[in-house]
Amino acid sequence: MSRLSLDAVNDLDAVGFTAAFGGLAEHSPWVAAMAFSHRPFPSVTALHAALVAAINAAGPDQQLALLRAHPDLAGRAALAGELTASSSAEQAAAGLDRLTPEEMARFQELNAAYTARFGFPFILAVRHATKHHILAAYARRVTNTPAAETAAALGEVAKIIGMRLLTVVEPAPTGRLTVHALDTAAGMPARGLPVELVRGDGGTVLVSTITNADGRVDGPLLAGADLHAGVYELRFHAGVYFQTAGHALSAPPFLDVVPIRFAVANPEQHYHVPLLLSPWSYSTYRGS
Amino acid sequence: MSRLSLDAVNDLDAVGFTAAFGGLAEHSPWVAAMAFSHRPFPSVTALHAALVAAINAAGPDQQLALLRAHPDLAGRAALAGELTASSSAEQAAAGLDRLTPEEMARFQELNAAYTARFGFPFILAVRHATKHHILAAYARRVTNTPAAETAAALGEVAKIIGMRLLTVVEPAPTGRLTVHALDTAAGMPARGLPVELVRGDGGTVLVSTITNADGRVDGPLLAGADLHAGVYELRFHAGVYFQTAGHALSAPPFLDVVPIRFAVANPEQHYHVPLLLSPWSYSTYRGS
Amino acid sequence: MSRLSLDAVNDLDAVGFTAAFGGLAEHSPWVAAMAFSHRPFPSVTALHAALVAAINAAGPDQQLALLRAHPDLAGRAALAGELTASSSAEQAAAGLDRLTPEEMARFQELNAAYTARFGFPFILAVRHATKHHILAAYARRVTNTPAAETAAALGEVAKIIGMRLLTVVEPAPTGRLTVHALDTAAGMPARGLPVELVRGDGGTVLVSTITNADGRVDGPLLAGADLHAGVYELRFHAGVYFQTAGHALSAPPFLDVVPIRFAVANPEQHYHVPLLLSPWSYSTYRGS
Amino acid sequence: MSRLSLDAVNDLDAVGFTAAFGGLAEHSPWVAAMAFSHRPFPSVTALHAALVAAINAAGPDQQLALLRAHPDLAGRAALAGELTASSSAEQAAAGLDRLTPEEMARFQELNAAYTARFGFPFILAVRHATKHHILAAYARRVTNTPAAETAAALGEVAKIIGMRLLTVVEPAPTGRLTVHALDTAAGMPARGLPVELVRGDGGTVLVSTITNADGRVDGPLLAGADLHAGVYELRFHAGVYFQTAGHALSAPPFLDVVPIRFAVANPEQHYHVPLLLSPWSYSTYRGS
Repeated sequence: MSRLSLDAVNDLDAVGFTAAFGGLAEHSPWVAAMAFSHRPFPSVTALHAALVAAINAAGPDQQLALLRAHPDLAGRAALAGELTASSSAEQAAAGLDRLTPEEMARFQELNAAYTARFGFPFILAVRHATKHHILAAYARRVTNTPAAETAAALGEVAKIIGMRLLTVVEPAPTGRLTVHALDTAAGMPARGLPVELVRGDGGTVLVSTITNADGRVDGPLLAGADLHAGVYELRFHAGVYFQTAGHALSAPPFLDVVPIRFAVANPEQHYHVPLLLSPWSYSTYRGS
Repeated sequence: MSRLSLDAVNDLDAVGFTAAFGGLAEHSPWVAAMAFSHRPFPSVTALHAALVAAINAAGPDQQLALLRAHPDLAGRAALAGELTASSSAEQAAAGLDRLTPEEMARFQELNAAYTARFGFPFILAVRHATKHHILAAYARRVTNTPAAETAAALGEVAKIIGMRLLTVVEPAPTGRLTVHALDTAAGMPARGLPVELVRGDGGTVLVSTITNADGRVDGPLLAGADLHAGVYELRFHAGVYFQTAGHALSAPPFLDVVPIRFAVANPEQHYHVPLLLSPWSYSTYRGS
Repeated sequence: MSRLSLDAVNDLDAVGFTAAFGGLAEHSPWVAAMAFSHRPFPSVTALHAALVAAINAAGPDQQLALLRAHPDLAGRAALAGELTASSSAEQAAAGLDRLTPEEMARFQELNAAYTARFGFPFILAVRHATKHHILAAYARRVTNTPAAETAAALGEVAKIIGMRLLTVVEPAPTGRLTVHALDTAAGMPARGLPVELVRGDGGTVLVSTITNADGRVDGPLLAGADLHAGVYELRFHAGVYFQTAGHALSAPPFLDVVPIRFAVANPEQHYHVPLLLSPWSYSTYRGS
Repeated sequence: MSRLSLDAVNDLDAVGFTAAFGGLAEHSPWVAAMAFSHRPFPSVTALHAALVAAINAAGPDQQLALLRAHPDLAGRAALAGELTASSSAEQAAAGLDRLTPEEMARFQELNAAYTARFGFPFILAVRHATKHHILAAYARRVTNTPAAETAAALGEVAKIIGMRLLTVVEPAPTGRLTVHALDTAAGMPARGLPVELVRGDGGTVLVSTITNADGRVDGPLLAGADLHAGVYELRFHAGVYFQTAGHALSAPPFLDVVPIRFAVANPEQHYHVPLLLSPWSYSTYRGS
């Protein structure tokens, strides 16, 4: 399904806007209706901020109603096929449609305990999660105070809206992915270091290149419409690089292909991934 | 094929010893014969050191003869099926039996240029290498001085002997693999961090566990006979860990599963792999 | 003034205990009185925890009274010489007795604004702070919600009690300071690295030693009664080390003496300070 | 003494050039004479490279004569006041004019052993060294092969020429010092981090500033003629920064003022010093 451009979003009238975005907040079209007045939106980030601001500006009763509009994770609505299409896809992405009967029973027990304590269902942005993430989140959040947990649940609603938004609107072309490799054994940029970028599922090689004299790649690895939310893996060929540089390495070398697995959450941002590399150590971080 | 124990090695007489190890140095049983007098060997490391010392103690002519006894990589002997069994297996492991005709021609051209310059064939420990490693090594070493290149070639012979040795003798049970995870956002050991150890080929999960209160795993991940030379990958589940710790993460988190890919070259040693981890950065290194 | 041993503390009767510790919480001897029942205390850490638990168990009114019992920083009471001896010493340690008239006026203005907003004076553990820390803390905390700020102020009271406690009771001899240096260019412990430990004021050299084959120092650098709360600086002589190891360094080397400045807050704990070092980079962290 | 500009250097005739630079290589004006033909020199770096190339192009006898023209460190010539002015200043900078009689005897013993082995005096660029550096260098280099040691000694001659050159020619204004601070606990640039730059002797504060929204300082900290060869110390005020960011820190904080001590060897280069900082850890390196 093709996504709306930001220009098209900004041309929508109130009815069209609510039709397009009324489903982002589960069963709560008022969120989109309140955000409409903040047009034009220069970015998905700005549109998302307007939707989240609408929720934050609402009163406690309206916020509670929004939370209560969410289905249980792996709950009765899922079994009965009564989820919204978005919720159904999200729960499937987390593998919640393939639980064993024992796991299903465990989830329903946790849901019941949680709802009894807080008065609304357990909400979690699960599109990129696994059942392990979900169980860890249950375990931690069930000990929250009611005020802290309401804030946590609204935070998850904001994340869910953000992920859904990326499925219906094209991001502004401001995002990019860049890398920078330093050879900390030499105190110099790592020149001539082969690097590949692959999708996080381990499948497709998106880019295969080599660093320049400044330890960077000419131009971004991905930019604009080519940068999607999701998981990527960089693979730096440290073994070939240090062998070429004349280091005496063990056979096989301690470090050969160095994988850096990371996720892009907001494809309108700049993701800069530096690598500080020696034959026996490395560091990486989200840079700027 | 089952390997000899160190006890069995130390019980061999001179004839048996040379029979067992005479093939480690290509077509040069004198290397094993000279090492025999250094029995008993408490470890494969010590046996390897004795074999390498025998080569280093030999005169320049004998060293040159040893180098010249090696086949070309992807050369005529390989095409004609005339390699030793060891060389044949090693070249196949590096994919040299599956080159395109163009690649084969390129290798033969490089071999010819190298041999013309140095007077012996290009030697490289290729069991864990790829054609990219090999071409990088050619490119660098062909510019060496003759003295430096003789030293480099003898260094590769030592690595080849080390790898062959591990296929015929069981290592002493002194090796082990341990990990230690620090949460640098909290200044504390990372407690409760799920971690898996998988074979480097991406296939089998060898260990699946969780760090203790000191950020370590109770006991080594692998030890003794279970620790083999080769490539491994550790997978630290940082996303679940930091979510449990209450950090506000993006969705999906920048770091979720952190893979650390490394090789064990000497299975009699201690490999300690620390991870310094925050939600947005990490460092790893060979520790002690 | 000599400090009480933990044994002596545990031998005190209720009257003696309150006499000894009644002044730790500003003008609030009830805090010590409530902690008394938790004897015996195996450590200052445990005694401190009991005092803090007493505060946390008190009702909001009593907590508010405790907060209101504190003097303004650089306030009228200080000018009039009406501070408790503890407060006077602490404010002097932060240089608050040497402010310019302009700075004094600025503090009084901030105090007035803060007290008008929250109903109690601005409280900060200032013994190791500077006026820059204090102004930064004002700027951030004045924007807190009342609930968050009450929690923050009680947290500072806990820190103040902890620091005062160390002036009157000898810590249990469980603390120690250790280091570990790794040479990330070699993938080995840094053996033979000269290291000094000096007091944080830059004056006295406490220890001058050299790392052993495991990159550690034999025994702790400081332990037990020799480890005090306060600031220390480690100085690792990286230039000499890498020169000895045969690295080609610039003249002067980019890194020569590497200083690591850190503080011990709780002298009953283990402070482990690793250094990951190459000729062009290093990392340090609180280890375990 | 004012230094020559590069323009003035490039305007010199052969006689003037040799007069100006004939003393850089100890008692060996032929080095400058050979470099003259490579005018014009766009930088001190280029001029230095031409002088070093002249030495490398000379034959073994001429190189040996150059090495033999150097005085002993702390040797008879120094005692007799017979050093060149350059050598005298350099040896004094390393404290060699203030040795105890025992140290003096030790140096003369080492010099004699070294000269007996290699046939030329021990040469080391000592301007920024201490007697500890010098003794470490003796200990390592005395075990070199003659060929390796000749290369090492010529490398020291090149460093000495480089340092002397900076005392007589103004560098091209291409050098600069920049910093970049990342908050690895937040995955963001460290905004509002106070930082000072001081001379390495601990005395003068050269710059006192604060990082901008990108974690950098607007413009370089030092540039062009203000960047001198020598030792500097950056001081990052991490404690104030993380307190402002709302982290719960110990009192005093584990990290408060983080000192990074480093040297500029070539003031025509760009020195970029990043800091990756969390409340409990940091990394730094020469970046690009």
